[in-house]
Amino acid sequence: MNQEISRYDQKLERILRTAARIFAEKSFHSTSMRDISRATGLSLAGLYHYCKSKEELLFLIQDHCFGRVLERLEQRLCETSDPIRKLRIFIDNHLSFFAANMAEMKVLSHEADSLSGGLHEQVSTRKRQYTRLARKILSEVRQTAPRGSESRAPHRNGERGRKARRVDLTIATYALFGMMNWIYNWYDPRGKLSVRQLVDNITRLFLAGFLSQDQALVLADSGTVEKVNIWRTA
Amino acid sequence: MNQEISRYDQKLERILRTAARIFAEKSFHSTSMRDISRATGLSLAGLYHYCKSKEELLFLIQDHCFGRVLERLEQRLCETSDPIRKLRIFIDNHLSFFAANMAEMKVLSHEADSLSGGLHEQVSTRKRQYTRLARKILSEVRQTAPRGSESRAPHRNGERGRKARRVDLTIATYALFGMMNWIYNWYDPRGKLSVRQLVDNITRLFLAGFLSQDQALVLADSGTVEKVNIWRTA
Repeated sequence: MNQEISRYDQKLERILRTAARIFAEKSFHSTSMRDISRATGLSLAGLYHYCKSKEELLFLIQDHCFGRVLERLEQRLCETSDPIRKLRIFIDNHLSFFAANMAEMKVLSHEADSLSGGLHEQVSTRKRQYTRLARKILSEVRQTAPRGSESRAPHRNGERGRKARRVDLTIATYALFGMMNWIYNWYDPRGKLSVRQLVDNITRLFLAGFLSQDQALVLADSGTVEKVNIWRTA
Repeated sequence: MNQEISRYDQKLERILRTAARIFAEKSFHSTSMRDISRATGLSLAGLYHYCKSKEELLFLIQDHCFGRVLERLEQRLCETSDPIRKLRIFIDNHLSFFAANMAEMKVLSHEADSLSGGLHEQVSTRKRQYTRLARKILSEVRQTAPRGSESRAPHRNGERGRKARRVDLTIATYALFGMMNWIYNWYDPRGKLSVRQLVDNITRLFLAGFLSQDQALVLADSGTVEKVNIWRTA
């Protein structure tokens, strides 16, 4: 019986992997169940044995992705109670998964709104859970970082006297996700930059920026931000 | 004659703006010329007077976006020769444009590969030009930053003696784009965070991280990065 379940699951995973690749290539909306049946070598009827609809396939891909990333992360976070190590594990886990699954990553980014109703809600719940966890780690990093880890550069623009300002926690959280998730636009896992170098550099770049309260880097008032609609007729 | 050209351009801009909104909502592939004709109130024949195809519309949106962002950036960069101010202007210009044009931004991100042939090449050329400019500014920032602006935090993990490592320039460039471009996934221009706060925080976060050579933040060897295909059957 167990072996039966496992064979079913294996087949389903193979279908999901293929579907993710096709969705990433030509978008969810332009992909038909016929495309997926052709690519998997299954008949349409055979395919519908594993999923009720194209939307269910998309849901299963997204749910599976987040499920695996979260599950592994929670296991790995047990290794340490040091917030900076936790952050390093978080970045390592996220980038390692995503560099090894670029098609799935693109589908997660691009097709977040292609689900609706309960399926959309389930994926959104996982996503919120994951974002909350990232935010919690960042908040711990900030609380336990020794004051001495703040940068002490010479001050520019005569701002020496101003109170140190910390980077907003919401912006920092999404900036971190942005740095990591954007890799599907430029990173080639078979290129000369290893995932390890990616993890090292992004951890360093983010962490040093996040912990700094360096007034040298708060530039003098740059005036009002422009209102810049790209269309003149807006 | 001039007024005629201008009226034509105004109408075209209105079409492009509407098309960008629809592409952002339901993707380029699921949008038909009929959808755009309906939303603009033009007949199909009227619409084809302004563009030959849906692909041309997508091209014009992307080309116009990059054109305006680059043009304004080049004007503003003339104001200063200080690399750190240039970087601030770059981030300000990018975020101001994109926060004011979230639909266009999503289309630029999601539909980069929906163009083909010469149209794809033209947009890619502009994108490379923009990326090169960002990289050049970052490289200037690094060269002219006083050594004193590097952070001097206490060292962790006994790494005091190791040579300071800088963040890789390619990773830093794309990390910056990631931080900025990701905003279309979470930022609400009508919410409580102003574009100004976004610009301030992202500039600070990025710049402090980029200029830091703080060994405190280079964590001890974290072992080999895992190979983590999310599918067990891969």
